[in-house]
Amino acid sequence: MRRIMSILVENEPGILSRISGLFNGRGFNIESLNVAPTLEKGVSLMTITTYGNEQTFEQLAKQLRKLVTVIEVMDFGLTSIVEREMMLVKVAANDSNRGEILRIADIFRCKVVDVSLNDLTLEATGDHEKLKAIIDLLKTFGIKEIGRTGALALRRSMQSEEN
Amino acid sequence: MRRIMSILVENEPGILSRISGLFNGRGFNIESLNVAPTLEKGVSLMTITTYGNEQTFEQLAKQLRKLVTVIEVMDFGLTSIVEREMMLVKVAANDSNRGEILRIADIFRCKVVDVSLNDLTLEATGDHEKLKAIIDLLKTFGIKEIGRTGALALRRSMQSEEN
Repeated sequence: MRRIMSILVENEPGILSRISGLFNGRGFNIESLNVAPTLEKGVSLMTITTYGNEQTFEQLAKQLRKLVTVIEVMDFGLTSIVEREMMLVKVAANDSNRGEILRIADIFRCKVVDVSLNDLTLEATGDHEKLKAIIDLLKTFGIKEIGRTGALALRRSMQSEEN
Repeated sequence: MRRIMSILVENEPGILSRISGLFNGRGFNIESLNVAPTLEKGVSLMTITTYGNEQTFEQLAKQLRKLVTVIEVMDFGLTSIVEREMMLVKVAANDSNRGEILRIADIFRCKVVDVSLNDLTLEATGDHEKLKAIIDLLKTFGIKEIGRTGALALRRSMQSEEN
C-alpha cells in the first residue's frame, strides 16, 4: 500500500539521516522524499512516500514522534489530502513532432520551460497517476532526462468544520 | 553562495543517510533536498540545495563521486540550468479578499487546488525568487500551511552544440 507521511522537524544536522534510518530499520524503502524550510525559522517540512503494511507503519509513526527534533507527524492514512508532485522532463523533439508534444503539454497543463532545436523541457504537476500518464505519452517521443520532486501533501480543508 | 547539486544514485537502503552525512561532515547544511525514482529501475535522482564555499564544495563533489552507489554528480556551478520548485500554500481567505488572492494567483500562474469557506490552497511553481515573491504577497492575507519540494534542476540544452 502506498503511503504519504509529512513530518515537521527542527532543521538540525543529522535529522535526515536519523529519520531515513528509522524507515530503513523498519523495512520501509523510501520511494520519494522532499524536505524544505517552512515559514518558521529552523523548522522544515519533510514529505515521504513509501509502501508498507498498516501496522508496521503505525509503529514507525510512534517511533518518529519520540524523536526530540520531530515536531509533528502527519500520517495521511485515510485523511482527504491535496497531493501534488512536480517533474521536469526533457523530451526529444523535432520539427515534425514538436506540435504534437505541445498539444499533449497543453492538455495536461504543462508549462514549457526550455526549448532547443532537438528537445523541449516541460514542467508538469499533478498526482501520481497524472504524472504516470504524462510520462507514458512522452515516452513515445523519447525522454532524454527526467527529474521528479516526490509527492507533497496538505490536508484538505473540511467545509463542515468551518461552517 | 547558494548551490544546487543533482546526484544520480542507486536506490539502496542507507544511501540517503550516507549522502546527507557527507554534507554534514563537511559543514554544509542541507537547505532543501528531494529524491525520487527516474525511468531507470533502481536509479533515483537526488537534488540538494545548500550554501557554502566554492573550494569545500568541490571536495564534497569528489567525495560523493567515490561512493559506489553514486552514478553521477552534477554540480551546477556556472552551468545554465532550468531551476524549478513547487509549493502548496493554504491561504486564509474570505468573501471580501478571495477575489484579490485569485488575481495574485493568476498573475503568478498558480493553480487553485482546493477551496473552502475560510481558505484557498494554491499550487505555485517557479525559481527561488519567484516563490519568495509569492510568499511575501500571500503573507498579508495569512498563510495557514505551506509545503515546498525544494529545487529541481535540469541543464539547459545548448543550441550551439546541437546545430
